[in-house]
Amino acid sequence: MAKVVVFDSWNALYKQPFGAVNASATVDFRIDIALPYVAKVELKIHKDGMEEQSFEMTHEQGIAYIVSFKPYAATGLYFYYFKIQQNFDTEVRTTYYFNNRGMEGGEGFFTENYDDVCTYQLTCFEYADKAPEWYQNAVFYHIFVDRFFNADDHVRVPKPDSFIYARTEDTPYYIKNDKGEIVRWEFFGGNLDGIQQKLGYLKELGITGLYLSPIFEAKSNHKYDTSDYKKIDPMFGDETIFAALIQAANEHGMRIILDGVFNHVGEDSIYFNRNGHFDSVGAYQSVDSPYHHWFTFQNFPDQYDTWWGVSNLPVVNKRNADFQRLIYADKDSVIDHWTSRGVAGWRLDVADELPDAFIGGIRQTLLKYPDRVLIGEVWEDATNKIAYNERRHYLEGGMLQGVMNYPFRQIIIDLLNGDLTAQQAVQKTMAIKENYPAEALAANLNNIGTHDTARIFTMLLENKAKLRLAVYLLMVLPGVPCVYYGDEVGLTGGADPDNRKFYPWGREDADISEFYRAAIKLRNTNEALRKGEYHPFSLGVLFGVVRHVDEDNWHVFIMNPTHQEQEIDLTKIYPQREDWIPIVQAAKIQKNKIAPYGFFFV
Amino acid sequence: MAKVVVFDSWNALYKQPFGAVNASATVDFRIDIALPYVAKVELKIHKDGMEEQSFEMTHEQGIAYIVSFKPYAATGLYFYYFKIQQNFDTEVRTTYYFNNRGMEGGEGFFTENYDDVCTYQLTCFEYADKAPEWYQNAVFYHIFVDRFFNADDHVRVPKPDSFIYARTEDTPYYIKNDKGEIVRWEFFGGNLDGIQQKLGYLKELGITGLYLSPIFEAKSNHKYDTSDYKKIDPMFGDETIFAALIQAANEHGMRIILDGVFNHVGEDSIYFNRNGHFDSVGAYQSVDSPYHHWFTFQNFPDQYDTWWGVSNLPVVNKRNADFQRLIYADKDSVIDHWTSRGVAGWRLDVADELPDAFIGGIRQTLLKYPDRVLIGEVWEDATNKIAYNERRHYLEGGMLQGVMNYPFRQIIIDLLNGDLTAQQAVQKTMAIKENYPAEALAANLNNIGTHDTARIFTMLLENKAKLRLAVYLLMVLPGVPCVYYGDEVGLTGGADPDNRKFYPWGREDADISEFYRAAIKLRNTNEALRKGEYHPFSLGVLFGVVRHVDEDNWHVFIMNPTHQEQEIDLTKIYPQREDWIPIVQAAKIQKNKIAPYGFFFV
Repeated sequence: MAKVVVFDSWNALYKQPFGAVNASATVDFRIDIALPYVAKVELKIHKDGMEEQSFEMTHEQGIAYIVSFKPYAATGLYFYYFKIQQNFDTEVRTTYYFNNRGMEGGEGFFTENYDDVCTYQLTCFEYADKAPEWYQNAVFYHIFVDRFFNADDHVRVPKPDSFIYARTEDTPYYIKNDKGEIVRWEFFGGNLDGIQQKLGYLKELGITGLYLSPIFEAKSNHKYDTSDYKKIDPMFGDETIFAALIQAANEHGMRIILDGVFNHVGEDSIYFNRNGHFDSVGAYQSVDSPYHHWFTFQNFPDQYDTWWGVSNLPVVNKRNADFQRLIYADKDSVIDHWTSRGVAGWRLDVADELPDAFIGGIRQTLLKYPDRVLIGEVWEDATNKIAYNERRHYLEGGMLQGVMNYPFRQIIIDLLNGDLTAQQAVQKTMAIKENYPAEALAANLNNIGTHDTARIFTMLLENKAKLRLAVYLLMVLPGVPCVYYGDEVGLTGGADPDNRKFYPWGREDADISEFYRAAIKLRNTNEALRKGEYHPFSLGVLFGVVRHVDEDNWHVFIMNPTHQEQEIDLTKIYPQREDWIPIVQAAKIQKNKIAPYGFFFV
Repeated sequence: MAKVVVFDSWNALYKQPFGAVNASATVDFRIDIALPYVAKVELKIHKDGMEEQSFEMTHEQGIAYIVSFKPYAATGLYFYYFKIQQNFDTEVRTTYYFNNRGMEGGEGFFTENYDDVCTYQLTCFEYADKAPEWYQNAVFYHIFVDRFFNADDHVRVPKPDSFIYARTEDTPYYIKNDKGEIVRWEFFGGNLDGIQQKLGYLKELGITGLYLSPIFEAKSNHKYDTSDYKKIDPMFGDETIFAALIQAANEHGMRIILDGVFNHVGEDSIYFNRNGHFDSVGAYQSVDSPYHHWFTFQNFPDQYDTWWGVSNLPVVNKRNADFQRLIYADKDSVIDHWTSRGVAGWRLDVADELPDAFIGGIRQTLLKYPDRVLIGEVWEDATNKIAYNERRHYLEGGMLQGVMNYPFRQIIIDLLNGDLTAQQAVQKTMAIKENYPAEALAANLNNIGTHDTARIFTMLLENKAKLRLAVYLLMVLPGVPCVYYGDEVGLTGGADPDNRKFYPWGREDADISEFYRAAIKLRNTNEALRKGEYHPFSLGVLFGVVRHVDEDNWHVFIMNPTHQEQEIDLTKIYPQREDWIPIVQAAKIQKNKIAPYGFFFV
């Protein structure tokens, strides 16, 4: 049964151009209304936080109504729906066309009930903020430094009153007191020269970018509790060792990005110095400390703002000019200091906690150096994230070039575990594609597991066939894939700290390693997988992806996320989109069956 | 004012012989009664657990009443007091002479009130169970093996899922879950070859005996949770390394005694095998296990008797013949196995939990080997200890030759911290002297701190002057002194695990080390300090000790346990005992003042 009112934000017939637009662009909307007595059709739209505007749509031939829209208030988000007025003899009937309830874009629904309001999102960015070429082409490897490889046969410069794991195969364990606070940190002893020794392995795996967990001096094993932003943690190495790592990585065709942790520092730091372990006069020690105004004390010295109530992580006021100078504004700011030494980019920890201006300041500094990338830790759709009651503008130009793409991870896991149908997976990835500026979508750092999540093999109940599909999805979805160390050899682990086991050198799973290599190689050798447009589709229970550069350069990937053999029936294609149906058809798929958890490329 | 009734169990005039006696001996009692109309005087005495007997005392010349007593029921304890009957014209008056309320022997008190009853103790042993000569002459050193010295630069054969201390100077810490159970063991990595490497140091310190914490395979760092009684823990070494240690120790003039832990085993053991880590069929695993009947299950397999509710220490039924065979009765029993390899003796852990027959069985086996010693862990006066409602007979012959002398430790600490007067210290050490057979008193392993107590330096609030006195007291009191590793270089620590820090190699306190060496040397070079009779005395606030072999071979030690200079006034001597007043006088003490925390020998 044909629908009486049709709009589809993914379809060029109804909205042009697709997705996020430059704020100076014009967006052409069309809606088809097969209703009698239509008197008025309006595009109802409001800029985020502003009053709703109405734009009357013009009746074209047949059932089409159109309007050209120019974002009237520059960059940001616009939210829209359609209002239809029918003038019957005896009454005026008002109806609406809203976005679907998942707010995923594409087709919405027609209703008389205004209470159902679900708006479409139109992202307007300031400029297309393209990440550097090397980054978009990269396959990243995320290393939790303490847990990867130790260049020595002992643990270097261990912290006072800390513990060392007896064996590298031991299971991580937090040592807490009865209040649940960590009282002693535990270390495996990985270090930067350890990473350097394994660059050959990583190169062979196909890795071209390294994303390191924080490396600056800190008390913990994770080092999100910075003691000194300008010092490499002595357990990890020193400036010489770090310089050697960068150089060797470059020689192996890899660049390194660092984890920038600027929201909070460690209580044990030159800045706060709660326990007097540093020579400085810390904020905790005196109101005359040069760092005192970085922090917010309710009651000096023992009550102060901390990150999520974690008492050893005092939060810094990012609006403090001295702190800004240290991080990015001074001549030898932290960003300058390390970037000038060859760091290829930064991943900003808890970006939600950093004001837009602070992120912008970092980006400004990075612009002094060619080809650097700035991404951020955001867990949700980063285009419409509201953090601390403020809409964030990470991806609208001049701030982040991409974010860590946790939504894709969730879609992959849910699809493979049967918690999402193939069609739902299409919709959810399309929502991201539509909301993100194309350049950001291409620059998201995609993952199927990080130091903050359970490991992918564990999430997939240690099913290797599923894991293989997850890895291929990571490689064919748009964005920059990032492999979490050890995932590629079957490391397991639930929530932190179980997801931070030491890399199982000598105990690697060869099958898993093999398909990781193959999938990474596929990505590295196919431009379409790195740069092609992304068009997901489903064929019943099957999930498919088109990556498309031009007529001669495309890939179609089709996978079976079920444990049963499935028929391939191209007539079931969803969405019925004229722009990629031909591609799928052009692929001349010969197969008519696909094995359980099988996949193929054409 | 002269007392009207006088008895003094320490005074040869009133009781002869002094102290504990062979059960075949005759004990002569005298009591002086300066009362009118005395009609009847009785020695009221009962064998432990038996009915009271009366022995009428004969009126000698003057005020003296005497009786000769022969223990009528062989070995064990007898408890006595005196009953006096005066026949006045109009009434019969009954009075008593009881032991003092501290039950410390010496002078008691005269009372009409029977409710005040405090008996004197007479210990009757089966035979004088003398420890070997080498042992009585020894100065021991108590090593907690994991915490002394590591022969390697890494921790050898670490346990799965355990932690290693990052630095040897770190503070020990138990890693517990929220139920207070230890979930991971932590190790410093000391081992037997480590001890061997330090024998030169120990020899120079004057040590001639080593008492090692348990060395058999076990999961924990303390190894009181035995996994296999016939295997050296691989972290500590193996049979070859242990044999080399014994030989090297002997070459350095030292013998080694082991800690025998026979009350319980580890849940992770070949015997119990709760977690299936061993190849055996353990008691937990099957009712058909050869070890099943060693244990007491309330509810197989999860409810069973454990040591003090410590769930990982299942208690063994020491009356089980198979277990007895393993420990001491088989040809290659545990005791045989290790004693035949040169172990010079055993310290029985939690002797209170071992039946007399079990201890006797161990002793019987040890008799096959010359010059072995058997001592036990008992915390109180071991002569009258009641454990689990049973009077224990550790020191009456054929069982233990001595015990760990914790009462002396408490007296030393209390005297030096001002919680005990010098006179009270005299009384308390005399009580031990009187109750213990002389051979046992000489064979007690004296300490001022062990792995189960706070360290002596900490107990004395890190006052070096006090520590020096404590060390000299340890060397001049009767028994075999035992130095807890690290005490001799100023190691501090409160209760377990703080008392188990790693030996501070390179961070030794030179002052403390110096007076330890001097005190040990004094002991090693003076027979009277090793073998002389013990006569404590006080001079007001001063505490003194006479150690006396014969007229030519004696020592008088006088110390000032206060922080003020004190006068020396020999007329204040307590107790006024004719047998050692002459010795003190013969010493011709020239001094008339003694410095705060000072001491001297003559």
